Amino acid sequence: MAVGTSSGIPSTPLLKDEVDIVIPTIRNLDFLEMWRPFFQPYHLIIVQDGDPRKTITVPDGFDYELYNRNDINRILGPKAACISFNDSTCRCFGFLVSKKKYVAKDPSGKEINAPEQHIKNLLSPSTPFFFNTLYDPYREGADFVRGYPFSLREGVSTVVSHGLWLNIPDYDAPTQLVKPHERNTRQEYVDAVITVPKGALFPMCGMNLAFNRELIGPAMYFGLMGDGQPIRRYDDMWAGWCVKVICDHLGLGVKTGLPYIWHSKASNPLVNLKKEYHGIHWQEEVIPFFQAVSLPKKCTTPQECYIELSKQVKEKLGKVDVYFNKLADAMVTWIEAWDELNPSEKLSNVSAE
Amino acid sequence: MAVGTSSGIPSTPLLKDEVDIVIPTIRNLDFLEMWRPFFQPYHLIIVQDGDPRKTITVPDGFDYELYNRNDINRILGPKAACISFNDSTCRCFGFLVSKKKYVAKDPSGKEINAPEQHIKNLLSPSTPFFFNTLYDPYREGADFVRGYPFSLREGVSTVVSHGLWLNIPDYDAPTQLVKPHERNTRQEYVDAVITVPKGALFPMCGMNLAFNRELIGPAMYFGLMGDGQPIRRYDDMWAGWCVKVICDHLGLGVKTGLPYIWHSKASNPLVNLKKEYHGIHWQEEVIPFFQAVSLPKKCTTPQECYIELSKQVKEKLGKVDVYFNKLADAMVTWIEAWDELNPSEKLSNVSAE
Repeated sequence: MAVGTSSGIPSTPLLKDEVDIVIPTIRNLDFLEMWRPFFQPYHLIIVQDGDPRKTITVPDGFDYELYNRNDINRILGPKAACISFNDSTCRCFGFLVSKKKYVAKDPSGKEINAPEQHIKNLLSPSTPFFFNTLYDPYREGADFVRGYPFSLREGVSTVVSHGLWLNIPDYDAPTQLVKPHERNTRQEYVDAVITVPKGALFPMCGMNLAFNRELIGPAMYFGLMGDGQPIRRYDDMWAGWCVKVICDHLGLGVKTGLPYIWHSKASNPLVNLKKEYHGIHWQEEVIPFFQAVSLPKKCTTPQECYIELSKQVKEKLGKVDVYFNKLADAMVTWIEAWDELNPSEKLSNVSAE
Repeated sequence: MAVGTSSGIPSTPLLKDEVDIVIPTIRNLDFLEMWRPFFQPYHLIIVQDGDPRKTITVPDGFDYELYNRNDINRILGPKAACISFNDSTCRCFGFLVSKKKYVAKDPSGKEINAPEQHIKNLLSPSTPFFFNTLYDPYREGADFVRGYPFSLREGVSTVVSHGLWLNIPDYDAPTQLVKPHERNTRQEYVDAVITVPKGALFPMCGMNLAFNRELIGPAMYFGLMGDGQPIRRYDDMWAGWCVKVICDHLGLGVKTGLPYIWHSKASNPLVNLKKEYHGIHWQEEVIPFFQAVSLPKKCTTPQECYIELSKQVKEKLGKVDVYFNKLADAMVTWIEAWDELNPSEKLSNVSAE
């Protein structure tokens, strides 16, 4: 099936059989109508959060599988404890059960072919070892500027594509409170894709995200949030910090920028403030921890890196709050669940890619 | 005097008494007419390269001082050896004799108020310790996104503002040869300013550059190029590598992006290839050297950092080619000349700023 690109030029959907789109939801998926031309070619994995007795309706014509909490408990058994409940963090169950190389996440905007841009980002290399001032050198019309080392021009595999938001900006609760009317308008649309350099952490938002499941999937765990946990709205941040230090260790790349999606519904800043409270406090110790993390050379797969990271989290962040001990245990359970559901990947090795 | 901004709104020229514009030239400065509304409020330091007997004419109405090679020799005596001849690298003599806090360099485009944007970049902080996905958080309409540590939101002093080019891109000779007709058009104009993260080197182009002379001036040395030297077209790259590792050590910031200037005259790729030949070869060893450089804590001024760097250059890069021994000596001479012409700064200390 041919799909129009954002520029109106028809094209074949990219990587039709290698991409899954994961959507966490607590309600009917009418919004999919807006995305039909771009999403319909792909397989959807829908993770239903909240009451499993509720029936979720999906518009006709989409190819999907749907899991509710009962399915998650049945499939994972006791390991289901690592999948948060009543929080969109449940989405990472979809990453576990996908069998595709690439996973894209639930954008909810319109008229931008977000999957296509994400796939372009993932299919072109990243340049984490030296900054290119003309942004993505692999984009048409661009290149490496004078003085860019030739030995680094092949780049490395891009494993994360991080898209941005237009309209309602992705602010924390204090900033929302201070700037209730700020909107990221078309004037703030920046037509660029950038590699986040090696050694730099970034705030990864989970709303408009795609990644290479084979190369980085095991590190894309959104942690313990929601019911029974002291924190929310840090699921994607946590995943982003873990993913970035593991990418830096394994020599993999993260791109941020295009595609933009339109974010129409502002969340409540006072509710957010309660959800974020501990996160805002803790991040001042958690981020220096991630900035200082060093993984041993013997860790050559994302699984090995992630298990090592869980040990360091327990050792260093357990002192900040007992929550991090629980989280470190859940990180181990997550890898056990990953290996159980993806047995053939267990021996995979990035250096063998 | 009121000057129009790029948006047409009149404004007072920013930092009128704190900015010098340095222009190296071998010919008459008719191009200044195009820049009159933006340059006329500022003091110009013109460094005449080539034959000092030639008279350079400057359009009426500009406030300027002009130095030729005879002046340089008279003022610096034997230390004049660190100022290259027959190469635009001579511009850094202007950085030595300036008494202003900010120095902007010779853009040669039109209709963009480059000084104003550079000054805005230099007056707002940088964020080298954590990547903000919405680009410059201090720009109107932007901010720090969710998950950005609050402790880092004050940023650090911006000491370098690196503008980009439209039209003829700043490519090395091999890329020029491969893509003779590529142009960076209005479509490639990216409306953003970004902090280059700590730990990442970037290719600094000297054509559209401004910096804080007080905080980083002594590191802004363009090296030995041109007559009698085995290399050209790496003057700004060299300065950029040195400046960036010193900024990272001192906790200072570098911004890249706006302002764009229009670059109208393509240089000859075959001539460039000859000039760049050794640089292309050497940079594969020089860049890993800069990526690994570590400066001791006791170096707290740009002068101290630069002298330390010169020692490491001699020790590590002297093996690559004997040229780097000469360059290391010239780096020391440059600092001696700086301290001689700026005696009051000798005791200045970044931490006391």
